[in-house]
Amino acid sequence: MNPLPVTKTNADQPAASDELQSRQRRRFLGKGAAMAGTALAGGAVGASLANAAPLEVAESSKTMGKPIPATEYGVPSKYEKDYVRVRTNVFVNRQNQSDWSFTPLQYQKGIVTPNGVVYERHHNGTPDINPDTHKLVIHGMLKQPLVFTMNDIMRYPSVSKFYFMECSGNGLTDWTKPASTTVQQTHGLLSCGQWVGVPFSTLLDEAGLAPGAKWLLVEGADGVGHTRSIPLDKAMSDGLIVYALNGEMLRPENGYPLRAFFPGWEGNVNVKWLRRIKVGDQPWHFRSETARYTDPMPDGKWRQFSMEMDAKSVITSPSGGQKLDGAGAYEIRGFAWSGRGKIEKVDVSTDGGKNWREAVLEEPVMDKCLTSFKAPWAWDGRLSVLQSRALDSTGYVQPSVTEIGAYRGIHPYAFVQHHNGIQSWAVTEKGEVSNVIAS
Amino acid sequence: MNPLPVTKTNADQPAASDELQSRQRRRFLGKGAAMAGTALAGGAVGASLANAAPLEVAESSKTMGKPIPATEYGVPSKYEKDYVRVRTNVFVNRQNQSDWSFTPLQYQKGIVTPNGVVYERHHNGTPDINPDTHKLVIHGMLKQPLVFTMNDIMRYPSVSKFYFMECSGNGLTDWTKPASTTVQQTHGLLSCGQWVGVPFSTLLDEAGLAPGAKWLLVEGADGVGHTRSIPLDKAMSDGLIVYALNGEMLRPENGYPLRAFFPGWEGNVNVKWLRRIKVGDQPWHFRSETARYTDPMPDGKWRQFSMEMDAKSVITSPSGGQKLDGAGAYEIRGFAWSGRGKIEKVDVSTDGGKNWREAVLEEPVMDKCLTSFKAPWAWDGRLSVLQSRALDSTGYVQPSVTEIGAYRGIHPYAFVQHHNGIQSWAVTEKGEVSNVIAS
Repeated sequence: MNPLPVTKTNADQPAASDELQSRQRRRFLGKGAAMAGTALAGGAVGASLANAAPLEVAESSKTMGKPIPATEYGVPSKYEKDYVRVRTNVFVNRQNQSDWSFTPLQYQKGIVTPNGVVYERHHNGTPDINPDTHKLVIHGMLKQPLVFTMNDIMRYPSVSKFYFMECSGNGLTDWTKPASTTVQQTHGLLSCGQWVGVPFSTLLDEAGLAPGAKWLLVEGADGVGHTRSIPLDKAMSDGLIVYALNGEMLRPENGYPLRAFFPGWEGNVNVKWLRRIKVGDQPWHFRSETARYTDPMPDGKWRQFSMEMDAKSVITSPSGGQKLDGAGAYEIRGFAWSGRGKIEKVDVSTDGGKNWREAVLEEPVMDKCLTSFKAPWAWDGRLSVLQSRALDSTGYVQPSVTEIGAYRGIHPYAFVQHHNGIQSWAVTEKGEVSNVIAS
Repeated sequence: MNPLPVTKTNADQPAASDELQSRQRRRFLGKGAAMAGTALAGGAVGASLANAAPLEVAESSKTMGKPIPATEYGVPSKYEKDYVRVRTNVFVNRQNQSDWSFTPLQYQKGIVTPNGVVYERHHNGTPDINPDTHKLVIHGMLKQPLVFTMNDIMRYPSVSKFYFMECSGNGLTDWTKPASTTVQQTHGLLSCGQWVGVPFSTLLDEAGLAPGAKWLLVEGADGVGHTRSIPLDKAMSDGLIVYALNGEMLRPENGYPLRAFFPGWEGNVNVKWLRRIKVGDQPWHFRSETARYTDPMPDGKWRQFSMEMDAKSVITSPSGGQKLDGAGAYEIRGFAWSGRGKIEKVDVSTDGGKNWREAVLEEPVMDKCLTSFKAPWAWDGRLSVLQSRALDSTGYVQPSVTEIGAYRGIHPYAFVQHHNGIQSWAVTEKGEVSNVIAS
């Protein structure tokens, strides 16, 4: 509660030098081979601080810090300027009204994506919605159509669940050539957090479903009225009408004050700025389920309503655009997820898929949620190709792009959705990591 | 991917009116009694939208939204101004260098506290530390003292874990009289998230513990060099050297770029801006473990080194300062946590502890982590006193303040730490919720 005199801690000051740090680094790196099997066990190699020059006392230890304001919503350190959401650098409309931005996965530690960098996709910019006047209407094949204020919705029994969210367009630029540099560009239409809201089933039961009801129309209050058709079964089983993410109300660009959320399904169905739900007996065939968000098949036909996201994984460290600091011990880290259940297993390869070994999954491993995986890696300084491969609780194994090509049409000229192929990162002898296409 | 014409969705427009909403609200509220047992089942009461005036189309549906910038770290909606960390309004030093600020728990949805409002306590303001030059030294009873850069630390095998963090001073103003109004003031020195870092055991094993080593000194790089003595056993079992929280690097006020974290222990030991770890054979008896952060006993002696946080819970909704909108159905929501393990059970009472019923715990229920609980409540409009009571996996039951008084000294004139007593919120006939002391 109160400070110790600075003089006391200075008197007790240990000593070091740049030369020592250099030796310490070499010692750690030299143990790379041992590290591959276990955590770093105590070692006898190293330098004694007693033989080194005094360690400089940091300026921060000698000066007064910044007082905290009376009220505040804090922000990241000024040294973390790169930890930002980045708008796509392809397909930018001149008017910038229909756009998307990517989560910086290469820097994300743990499974929670901070709300400031949750990826987002909009079709007519971010609307400004006052929650005090916002309303949600439920109508159609119901015993009684209803209208709700935000206060009404927030009084209903709530549910909070950790789920990933991924755009089905994630990776569409990189099917056949490595167009992107970083994992933010290849996989950053992916975020994860704890979603809080009211089950669709609660409000639909309240309104009373009429016989024959089979589909829902969900519509946003943005300028384009983005709309999708959703099977009633999905909405009733685990669909949520969400008002909060990661502890606080949704951010404006992610649907404030209300959005739909269908766990494990492509992001586009999670209609933001939700204003209307209509119950019907068949889908409406909106543009986002005909001309867009459909998948070419090998026979030339296009698959509709493929909303469930297949199992997938990606190594985020090391990843494209990063540079390794010489041969030695590294930890391969990444995320795996499946729209169909839990992640059971992730394998990693450092030789482009010739050999695989099992990564460690970090708890909690949750249904339809990002799962962290990690594996020690002793880099020998030679050209390596890093890959990861997820297996989910249904037994499905993440395929290579070649394998996907056997049952899907992959047209280089079309914006082909649902790329869940294995990602490859090449590490050159210089330690430079780049995006490559490997079968 | 592309908009539907606005005209189409307008043509399909359902209708409503203020009168309808009022009826809908009455219908929902009128079902309070039934709601207590189950989720709201489909009902036949209500108004038909067809009979009401047209629902106005929101301005947001008729206008262009705001385009997203090229890069950004997003911020909350302008309508969420109250969701801020608030500095204490008691014990403020004139120079504001030793202070603390509270998390707005009354608004927190789910177990993740957004980093912008994670509570913080500092003893000489927030230091400005450049991660490129920051170093961590480990010395004392070791085979080889070591020094690490941030890059060194981040290459070690990482661990990510969800844990609560609570200041042992949480609630010290409210032992014998209700000095605080809101749950932010009574319990807001409490936050929760996924902490990411390197185990103490990894770095200590690397340095090699000498025979007889039993305690650690951990010291911060702030102007006061905040320092605590930590039993080696705790550090080796689950202590973490943390660099990230909730997906991103620590915020400056929460220790950027490095802090200690000892799961389930009082916040004060989680030394921020960590610069030094010294290994010894006995504690150092720093001011924060003698004159402060100690507990009076009934016999007049003071207990030292009581770092483990006892099981506790609090209702966050309804809570102090809020106002209920008339009799009817509500959901009681809150958090429970224990420094000793998992939460097994939470009971709630609406009559000041005469009768209790079991609340629902929301998954995931994790070790030493906030657990969300909820219970439906049909408020009859009469004076009620809401309480919650946690039971943890060791069998420990959260006590009342009277019960605590039997084995602890509670001095109204001292800043008594470790208040884990049952919190009471009174709800008046007008629906006003206030902080009360109930046995």
